[in-house]
Amino acid sequence: MSKIPHRLYLSEEQMPKQWYNLRADMKEQHDPMINPGTMKPAQVEDLYPVFCEKLAKQELDTETRYVDIPEEVQEMYKIYRPSPLIRAYNLEKALDTPAKIYYKFEGNNTSGSHKLNSAIAQAYYAKEQGLKGLTTETGAGQWGTALSEACAYFGLPLTVYMVKVSYNQKPFRKAVMQTFGAEVIASPSDTTHVGREILKKDPNTGGSLGCAISEAVEKAVTSEGYRYVLGSVLNQVLLHQSIIGLETKTAMEILGEYPDVVIGCAGGGSNLGGLIAPFMQDKLTGKANPRIVAVEPASCPSFTRGRYAYDFCDLGQITPLAKMYTLGSGFIPSANHAGGLRYHGMSPMLSKLYHDGSMEAVAVEQTKVFEAATFFAKNETILPAPESAHAIRAAMDEALRCKESGEAKTILFGLTGTGYFDMTAYTSYNEGTMEDYIPTDEDLEMSLSTLPKIPGIQE
Amino acid sequence: MSKIPHRLYLSEEQMPKQWYNLRADMKEQHDPMINPGTMKPAQVEDLYPVFCEKLAKQELDTETRYVDIPEEVQEMYKIYRPSPLIRAYNLEKALDTPAKIYYKFEGNNTSGSHKLNSAIAQAYYAKEQGLKGLTTETGAGQWGTALSEACAYFGLPLTVYMVKVSYNQKPFRKAVMQTFGAEVIASPSDTTHVGREILKKDPNTGGSLGCAISEAVEKAVTSEGYRYVLGSVLNQVLLHQSIIGLETKTAMEILGEYPDVVIGCAGGGSNLGGLIAPFMQDKLTGKANPRIVAVEPASCPSFTRGRYAYDFCDLGQITPLAKMYTLGSGFIPSANHAGGLRYHGMSPMLSKLYHDGSMEAVAVEQTKVFEAATFFAKNETILPAPESAHAIRAAMDEALRCKESGEAKTILFGLTGTGYFDMTAYTSYNEGTMEDYIPTDEDLEMSLSTLPKIPGIQE
Repeated sequence: MSKIPHRLYLSEEQMPKQWYNLRADMKEQHDPMINPGTMKPAQVEDLYPVFCEKLAKQELDTETRYVDIPEEVQEMYKIYRPSPLIRAYNLEKALDTPAKIYYKFEGNNTSGSHKLNSAIAQAYYAKEQGLKGLTTETGAGQWGTALSEACAYFGLPLTVYMVKVSYNQKPFRKAVMQTFGAEVIASPSDTTHVGREILKKDPNTGGSLGCAISEAVEKAVTSEGYRYVLGSVLNQVLLHQSIIGLETKTAMEILGEYPDVVIGCAGGGSNLGGLIAPFMQDKLTGKANPRIVAVEPASCPSFTRGRYAYDFCDLGQITPLAKMYTLGSGFIPSANHAGGLRYHGMSPMLSKLYHDGSMEAVAVEQTKVFEAATFFAKNETILPAPESAHAIRAAMDEALRCKESGEAKTILFGLTGTGYFDMTAYTSYNEGTMEDYIPTDEDLEMSLSTLPKIPGIQE
Repeated sequence: MSKIPHRLYLSEEQMPKQWYNLRADMKEQHDPMINPGTMKPAQVEDLYPVFCEKLAKQELDTETRYVDIPEEVQEMYKIYRPSPLIRAYNLEKALDTPAKIYYKFEGNNTSGSHKLNSAIAQAYYAKEQGLKGLTTETGAGQWGTALSEACAYFGLPLTVYMVKVSYNQKPFRKAVMQTFGAEVIASPSDTTHVGREILKKDPNTGGSLGCAISEAVEKAVTSEGYRYVLGSVLNQVLLHQSIIGLETKTAMEILGEYPDVVIGCAGGGSNLGGLIAPFMQDKLTGKANPRIVAVEPASCPSFTRGRYAYDFCDLGQITPLAKMYTLGSGFIPSANHAGGLRYHGMSPMLSKLYHDGSMEAVAVEQTKVFEAATFFAKNETILPAPESAHAIRAAMDEALRCKESGEAKTILFGLTGTGYFDMTAYTSYNEGTMEDYIPTDEDLEMSLSTLPKIPGIQE
């Protein structure tokens, strides 16, 4: 057999035509979302005022195993997909490991990350429903950028509430979204009731993700023909992101490979859930038994130190309650540079799989993460996003263990995006001023004490 | 025949194993470089103190048609190459043109541009010669970034003199280079004689490219085992960049296509010379007759309003004299946002071809360029570098003419890089504060009055 190439791109014919819904192969589903108004399980109708109809249905659909990707979505996917599966020959050599390291690189588009995979789907369904526009929030800016691109493509107006401190600190991210035609508003703002209330209390606040979510939801439900969209955590998002794993699995089959271990970073779970989907399917159906590893920051350790409980998805406590690994919606993550992983909760679907023992999790400190990021950049020419570098760290650690043991394992990890907009973090690492933040047990106890009470379910 | 895919990637087997030296097919060579010390044509030995030996030889080699790409260079190319040839279906649809538009996208690596193709070759030959390190200068930062990556890969120390005003304005570019291990020094600096002299005269100067070149060259020739490298203008650079055109031509052959017109932006000529190489070969050898178009900023119109004359390559007037289209080495380009195109001269090889009528040139204004860049981004999801957007503008204009005439021409252009580090420019365009700068005839007359006198050659 000839040598495995550095990068493999599927042909357009080989690209998946359907998303894969992992829930169809789970023996047991995660506990249902709870409507905070009624404290009863949320019905699909409860979701219609906020989400567009097809997406609300996808959110609750545990039956349909394969979902056709609409042709219009496939057409836009083809502009930047397939993304390459890359054999990290140089990294292997630099680590002097017998392990084979593969990574799926999702940073190959202007949005710079995998977020575009779901943004396109969500914008398409909104357009199809005849909606007039969308609202969302963004923190670090990856999701806002991706959705701006998708909305530009489908000609759909978009309002992005961007956390004010990011809005001021990251003018370039804002400029990218504006270039794609989005309206970007610093949150809190005077465009919503909740924003005005917060500004009245504290005119100088830098805002928060929770506040931005509240504003985006309020704007959507009070604007004729608008809906709100979210870039992670939700089942619908993991469904769309399954394109990552499906492409990867096909590419590995072509190469005659199968991973012994699949590694992904985990914030809300959108990338991890997408990458692992078909491999977890093999595991749940007994076809194969790869190890599956979530990597999270030690500063925001939802899986490894959180509690499996019902909690709000946002700081503002206006969203449905979800059963998930959580640090408490009042948890204030440290100023870790991986903005995309600074989230108190976790995808309910992945939480269930972790709780049932189908996957592992590991927490890593950010100086170790940037050490890995820099090493990787020098050897593979891709400067990774801080979020993605969590997976690199874990993959390198696995490869170094293989060096010790002499095992030639096949390691697969997800490289979700590039770090072009994260150079402040790299500078901090280069200058030796980066610190590690690890919450104390007392910190976590305090933030977990804010978990909501639900009569008969969570007292 | 099945539909042409959105993007075509060659397989590793299909990738070129040799660079193509266009000079071997030119009926007449460009006039030789002149050593400013002796005012005689430069010999290869004259170049050895500054350039490493193999590169000095490549610089003067007009005979060897195909040059083997060293295996180590091919290995590093494979990390990020082949780059895709993309059919711009969405742009075509948005323009409602019968033209077929293809672009070769070179922004698919962390350096963000085509510059890496030559940086790898230059770093490799330096390593092979046993050199201890390299120096270079960078303005906007694309070349400095690319060379930092290449030197990191080959384990070669690198000192980059970065124009002080850019050093302060673009901390992220600096951080990328530092992450790859380069020493980045704001120029003028106290590390060189020439730098100290300039600082003595004007301690608050923001520096200039000419000053940075002078410092980099001084540092190289005064440091044991160091050499200086340059990212454009030179014949050796165009040779390495021929990989762009060779890959493109192979990909078009696979698709059964051939361009009616080939379009590239032109600063020093590194991308344009690389992209057009095999198509110009066809033209020079009578195999085909594509139109070949250089696109330059109206603010720095070397081809369209410059003079074909001997001139210095740098403001400091320490480099050899080259016969080229020039605006005069004293020309101070306006604050146009396409930093990579703000150069007073042009590749001598391309200058000769233009002078002989083998190619055309067009100058475009920057507001029109950013209009095209934004339109392209919305339709193709790639946010282009301002330099690359010059080619987009010209390609769109060509496609719009096809719409008028009903001709289904095949248009090919080079998309040299991404605009992630140019958001200040996009913001200026989005906010409507961007201006166009066009030098007056008097401006050009004055800067051209500084052309050097060469006894018997240029009086």
